[in-house]
Amino acid sequence: MNENTRYTIISADAHAGLPCEQYRPYLDAQYHEQFDAFLAEKNEQRELAMKLNYEYINEWETTHEEGLRGAYDANQRDKEMDADGVAAEVIFPDADAITGMESPPFGAGLSAGMIEDPELAFAGARAHNRFLEELCATSPERRAGVGLVPITHDVQRAVAEIEWLAEKPGIRGIMIPTMWRDHRPYNDPAYDPVWAACQAANLPVHVHSGEAPREEMGEFIGIYLAEVVFWTHRPIAHLLFSGAFERFPGLKFVVTEGASYWVADMKWKWDQYLGGGHTTKKMAALMKGILSKLPSEYFGENIFVGASTMSKEEIRRRHSIGCDVAMWGTDYPHPEGTWPNTVERLRKDFGDVPVGDTRKMLCETAARCYGFDLAPLHPIAERIGPTPTDLGQDLTLVTTPEEIRAGEWWKDEYQVRWGG
Amino acid sequence: MNENTRYTIISADAHAGLPCEQYRPYLDAQYHEQFDAFLAEKNEQRELAMKLNYEYINEWETTHEEGLRGAYDANQRDKEMDADGVAAEVIFPDADAITGMESPPFGAGLSAGMIEDPELAFAGARAHNRFLEELCATSPERRAGVGLVPITHDVQRAVAEIEWLAEKPGIRGIMIPTMWRDHRPYNDPAYDPVWAACQAANLPVHVHSGEAPREEMGEFIGIYLAEVVFWTHRPIAHLLFSGAFERFPGLKFVVTEGASYWVADMKWKWDQYLGGGHTTKKMAALMKGILSKLPSEYFGENIFVGASTMSKEEIRRRHSIGCDVAMWGTDYPHPEGTWPNTVERLRKDFGDVPVGDTRKMLCETAARCYGFDLAPLHPIAERIGPTPTDLGQDLTLVTTPEEIRAGEWWKDEYQVRWGG
Repeated sequence: MNENTRYTIISADAHAGLPCEQYRPYLDAQYHEQFDAFLAEKNEQRELAMKLNYEYINEWETTHEEGLRGAYDANQRDKEMDADGVAAEVIFPDADAITGMESPPFGAGLSAGMIEDPELAFAGARAHNRFLEELCATSPERRAGVGLVPITHDVQRAVAEIEWLAEKPGIRGIMIPTMWRDHRPYNDPAYDPVWAACQAANLPVHVHSGEAPREEMGEFIGIYLAEVVFWTHRPIAHLLFSGAFERFPGLKFVVTEGASYWVADMKWKWDQYLGGGHTTKKMAALMKGILSKLPSEYFGENIFVGASTMSKEEIRRRHSIGCDVAMWGTDYPHPEGTWPNTVERLRKDFGDVPVGDTRKMLCETAARCYGFDLAPLHPIAERIGPTPTDLGQDLTLVTTPEEIRAGEWWKDEYQVRWGG
Repeated sequence: MNENTRYTIISADAHAGLPCEQYRPYLDAQYHEQFDAFLAEKNEQRELAMKLNYEYINEWETTHEEGLRGAYDANQRDKEMDADGVAAEVIFPDADAITGMESPPFGAGLSAGMIEDPELAFAGARAHNRFLEELCATSPERRAGVGLVPITHDVQRAVAEIEWLAEKPGIRGIMIPTMWRDHRPYNDPAYDPVWAACQAANLPVHVHSGEAPREEMGEFIGIYLAEVVFWTHRPIAHLLFSGAFERFPGLKFVVTEGASYWVADMKWKWDQYLGGGHTTKKMAALMKGILSKLPSEYFGENIFVGASTMSKEEIRRRHSIGCDVAMWGTDYPHPEGTWPNTVERLRKDFGDVPVGDTRKMLCETAARCYGFDLAPLHPIAERIGPTPTDLGQDLTLVTTPEEIRAGEWWKDEYQVRWGG
């Protein structure tokens, strides 16, 4: 490998899903009647969306008709990845982000927290997991499927699902409901068997953006947009500050498509609360014994961020966020993603970034988080990946240790110290 | 006034309150029995805090015994302000931040959202308001008392309380429960009579940090610290994106002691959602007709931040947050505040800041937000205020229009455009 070796791009955020009605054969027969009702609701939702936003939706869907079939068709998917320069990807549910027509039964994907009936929650998740397992098995070296596990409903059953998933090639993570709603919050040790099972199977646990308490937001989409990032990253604090990563030091927790700009301030403030001296002394005294390290030190070890299509500002903040924390992603096949113009977008956003930092955010951090074997990916990257020169990068740029240290400026400014 | 004229410091965050039991004469007699139960609870709470943290509490309380009486004693308070260089202040409830022994009856101050019985919520608020009115009347030019109004329980009664408060010299704002809990969220037009009354009386509406859904946090103080800022600023999004500032363009909303570092990213992301082009187009289309301006343009007009003892990083971010948005404050008499070392702390934090920016954050923005008459404050400041030279400032430093524009970097980077 030299400076201009092609990037082995691992997209840490992509989506797959069958057109809703095609989930039927993957769904246990006793739920087929309830599935009909779900489908009827989905169709109404589609009609409403089309009424509100016809021009935009129609343009997207007709322009990209063939490529959008990659949501469920493995050959088409590989073709799209190849054309886009992407060697491997992490795969979440709900491929249709506009009208929701590729969601697992009963909304068991990105809206899993909304399902009230545990039977439906597990049935919908299992239907998607069966489909996902098949999709990922077609080229498990390129795919990290994220299985669905509605842990809020039943911890024991969740553990069984995790154990089932752990056996499947190409399954490399699980996703839990982003919101716990009326169930136990994620700081509750009742979830320990879930964390233990994920640690044992080396399956990172994910939450993915999408959910929010819509019932408090009226019809105001702006409120949703303003809050959705909080609701997505909220579980991090509940796991970290309840000591979950002390009890399960091998546990990895990933927050996906909830952006990453907030990571920098989160690390700063959290380090300051524990180790920042006078102003927070009264609080820090109450946290003794829970954490053995500074909060920022769990990032990149236990906490990762599927940062999707990072903004330029997030890339500028990379030494505060951590190139070993943020994992870039295409969000294929969602319209807010980079597909089918990934290389062009990377050139625009990463043109002035050193190659070493870029390799971390586009590949190495995800490889480490998900345990991708890079050996079988390299020949694929050699065939399809962009070179640093393709991205307009200056091969002589190198990040210095001083720049990395300056990224975590608060460590010097507050002289943060923490002895647990 | 020249460059080295003494600062007229208006502290946008201070607290006052009687020792709990002394609220009795201010509380309507029919609540005295319930008040006894509240007092018993308070005393237990104090004992527990002392057990957990005796050394720290005892040191603070004995070292500052005299000065802490300023929480309710007007003469002592003026003496502390004078010695600390503070000309005027905005006054919130709950003067004892450590053991909670200066809280209004039934926790009607910073924990108002926790009160379930509307009768107790209004009775406790009224008791504090009667005390506050007296305290502020002693020198209304130096005090902006913030009255308590539990709007979540009863909008009509809230409006009556606002009208009562509006008549009182030295009352210049109201505080509402930070969390609406099971009541209507603040985006609900049912609160319009409250916003109308506050607009008519020119009383800024406040939320103040403190509340959070503790029932979801177990015993983990770290979770509370990680989330409390969100719960404090949450109402901004609900008011702004439901169009409250369009219906009430004179309404001012202030978020106090919830820090200010988040303002910069909030303005960036919110401007981007509305006016940022391709990636957010599908969302922006749904916001047509609600806002006439970019979200960032409501900051400094309708939205203000009582930033309390700003960190150096927040001061560095001042052109992104806005010197016309953030209002510095001592947090007197809380131990995490700057009292009794305010000038020393200002020297440390503002030493490299231009005088013009400093005057905004220490004085002018608060004067504009609260309608302070600066004429009677100037002679006080001439007597007690620090000069820029006292703060170690370079009198030749001037902020350029380019620096201010660079602070709102996203406006150029995304070429944000919004036509409402």
